[in-house]
Amino acid sequence: MKIDRALAPVGTLVTLSDRFEGDENPLGILSKGAVLIKDDEIVWVGKQDDVPSEFDLSEADIQDLSEDTVFPGFIDCHTHLVFGGSRANEFDMRVRGDSYLEILQAGGGINATVRMTREASFDELYDLGMRRLDAMLREGVTTVEAKSGYGLTLEGELRLLEVIQALNRDHVVDVVPTFLGAHTIPETFKTNPREYVDLVIHEMLPAVVERGLAEFCDIFCEEGVYDVETSREILEAARGRGLKLKVHADQLTASGGGRLAAELRATSAEHLEYLREEDIPAFKEAGTVAVLLPIAAMYLMMEKVPPVKSLLEQGVPVAFATDFNPGSAPCLSLLTTMTMAAILYRLPSDEVLRGVTVHAARAVGREARLGKVEAGFQADLAVFSVGDHRLVVTTFGGILPSRVMKRGRWASLSAPCEPIMTTL
Amino acid sequence: MKIDRALAPVGTLVTLSDRFEGDENPLGILSKGAVLIKDDEIVWVGKQDDVPSEFDLSEADIQDLSEDTVFPGFIDCHTHLVFGGSRANEFDMRVRGDSYLEILQAGGGINATVRMTREASFDELYDLGMRRLDAMLREGVTTVEAKSGYGLTLEGELRLLEVIQALNRDHVVDVVPTFLGAHTIPETFKTNPREYVDLVIHEMLPAVVERGLAEFCDIFCEEGVYDVETSREILEAARGRGLKLKVHADQLTASGGGRLAAELRATSAEHLEYLREEDIPAFKEAGTVAVLLPIAAMYLMMEKVPPVKSLLEQGVPVAFATDFNPGSAPCLSLLTTMTMAAILYRLPSDEVLRGVTVHAARAVGREARLGKVEAGFQADLAVFSVGDHRLVVTTFGGILPSRVMKRGRWASLSAPCEPIMTTL
Repeated sequence: MKIDRALAPVGTLVTLSDRFEGDENPLGILSKGAVLIKDDEIVWVGKQDDVPSEFDLSEADIQDLSEDTVFPGFIDCHTHLVFGGSRANEFDMRVRGDSYLEILQAGGGINATVRMTREASFDELYDLGMRRLDAMLREGVTTVEAKSGYGLTLEGELRLLEVIQALNRDHVVDVVPTFLGAHTIPETFKTNPREYVDLVIHEMLPAVVERGLAEFCDIFCEEGVYDVETSREILEAARGRGLKLKVHADQLTASGGGRLAAELRATSAEHLEYLREEDIPAFKEAGTVAVLLPIAAMYLMMEKVPPVKSLLEQGVPVAFATDFNPGSAPCLSLLTTMTMAAILYRLPSDEVLRGVTVHAARAVGREARLGKVEAGFQADLAVFSVGDHRLVVTTFGGILPSRVMKRGRWASLSAPCEPIMTTL
Repeated sequence: MKIDRALAPVGTLVTLSDRFEGDENPLGILSKGAVLIKDDEIVWVGKQDDVPSEFDLSEADIQDLSEDTVFPGFIDCHTHLVFGGSRANEFDMRVRGDSYLEILQAGGGINATVRMTREASFDELYDLGMRRLDAMLREGVTTVEAKSGYGLTLEGELRLLEVIQALNRDHVVDVVPTFLGAHTIPETFKTNPREYVDLVIHEMLPAVVERGLAEFCDIFCEEGVYDVETSREILEAARGRGLKLKVHADQLTASGGGRLAAELRATSAEHLEYLREEDIPAFKEAGTVAVLLPIAAMYLMMEKVPPVKSLLEQGVPVAFATDFNPGSAPCLSLLTTMTMAAILYRLPSDEVLRGVTVHAARAVGREARLGKVEAGFQADLAVFSVGDHRLVVTTFGGILPSRVMKRGRWASLSAPCEPIMTTL
């Protein structure tokens, strides 16, 4: 077979592949490894010395990365990528001690972003999204999940999903679309929320699915927003139309969203600060990924942390994501998120790395193609000029990949100096 | 007067200057401002419409920054910039619950970095330092304090200060040198620490001062390291030789280092998690800057925070710095530090911005020339493509300056992909 590209040798190759993992080598790390690539796919991985002769490297672009560490491209599996405006003002209110309710009453919160997003044109939202994806790619992130949820009308939600579709089409980063019409109760439906639920189920969902605009349906299941029974109704309707499920669950109270996610065999449940210990076995049984969002927890100054140790001990896949959004996590940096996950949850670097590769791939339904350096997987790779793979987690800012490969091609990286939030 | 460079108009000009400050405008922000520069100096600041006719702009390079926000260049006033090796392994030990002592016994801690630094050549340390300064400049940091303290022999300490001197000479960022021979008790002096104290006072200090290698003397005043009386002795000897003083104080216990710093009228006292309320008036009286290091606190997973609110209420200047070092703060990012300071100490963005400009300038003895956009100040500026100055604090990663000016010249910015820590 004619090989297009070869990374050989690679000083430290972090494969995350079962083939190379062992008790002493939980991340399947190969020293002096090699990766062979054809088109957009990895076709062989192993030790440099073991490259089989069936592969013809005579015309391959061969990169010597003997001083470098190579990871699978990172996956940011929970973001609210597309919105207008910023909410920097709320931060100062929060440190002053203003409650969530006071911030809402001052015109803040999700509904503030809904207003600012409605004021932004399709092109403005698209441009912001492209720059944000540039900033993410710059850190070695090659796949990003993106939710709607700042439209909250049929047209508004479809427009956001169309922006996401255009971003996925035009940006080298893959964007996985999630419909989050049930992000909050819109201001105009405060007195008759049932009407909005009907709109989501009977108008938005059919339109989203008909246009092929989403792979996942997500919901904010929380006391005072969507209770468990309403969440179940919306999620079952989404599943009935062929969407996979995600649930914002147990973030502010133990409202039962985590258990619901597992019952519905959702792909993932998110936040989970208040997840009850007794709900964890159901996660394991259902294969539901626990997506933890340490930046939002830090930013909201929460004391409570999710039951991370129990989740891991019971074999639940635990992923980490930025939760990028203008209110509770204005953070495009998955690398900072990784450091913060390690610190906040007291996790060793290896566990954090699994949470932005294999487990994050599962959280976006891409575990068969993404998150490992393995034959048959997409050639998405992040190259760091470090000799110790743990430094990528334990260094707090200041380390960026020297190269990033997406679908078998080296990506052009630009620094994120352009505005990534607008002031309206 | 012929002007070399003019920024006009500037959308949002954050001057930090008393001339423009007021109750409603604590950072002295000008909209549609202008900055005139001659050589390396700011010669006029005000509203675009008020530029006096005495200034000849006919040959000036005029930049339209009407969409941007301009700050004084940021100052990282506490770093351990120069060291060899990395200590990524200690992080995993710490999250596993190993104590500081256990990490020390496993060959970790400051003495591990002392060993790895001794193994590194002058050129290796210089190259690492240059890359680290590149990464800092990339974030808008134009002045960096750098301590020795990983030599702990006469030759070792002089060598580190000579690396710092070479970095200051060759890098566009200004580097302020601090002698920290009393960083810890070296392993070889464990049984006779007094001998090391004598070495610091009678051999190191004279040699450092004679060669003009330091502006400041710092010490790690802490139970089991240098107690208050020994610290006083070393600091008084340093002051006697003309050095200004800094003190690592009250970080792990209320050992009295903060009070000592104020008594000695030290320029700054650092960390201060355990500073006693009753010591705060002495800070105010002495003009000692409280330098807080939120990354180290996060990284060491400390529960205790310094008495920030009291310090501010009593008018003590409070600065924030990365504390960049391989053990407790492997963080080159002052921007991340700013976000973390805001969150950890519940501070509004304005207070954080003061802490990396005017107050940080005072902490490095440069308050007459740095930290403000004001006539007579050095033309060190950071330009961000954001419309709301608070976003620079409240955004967690992902925002970088579009341009940085140092001494009246636009600096060339490169992304920090090169290794900033080595693996030995």
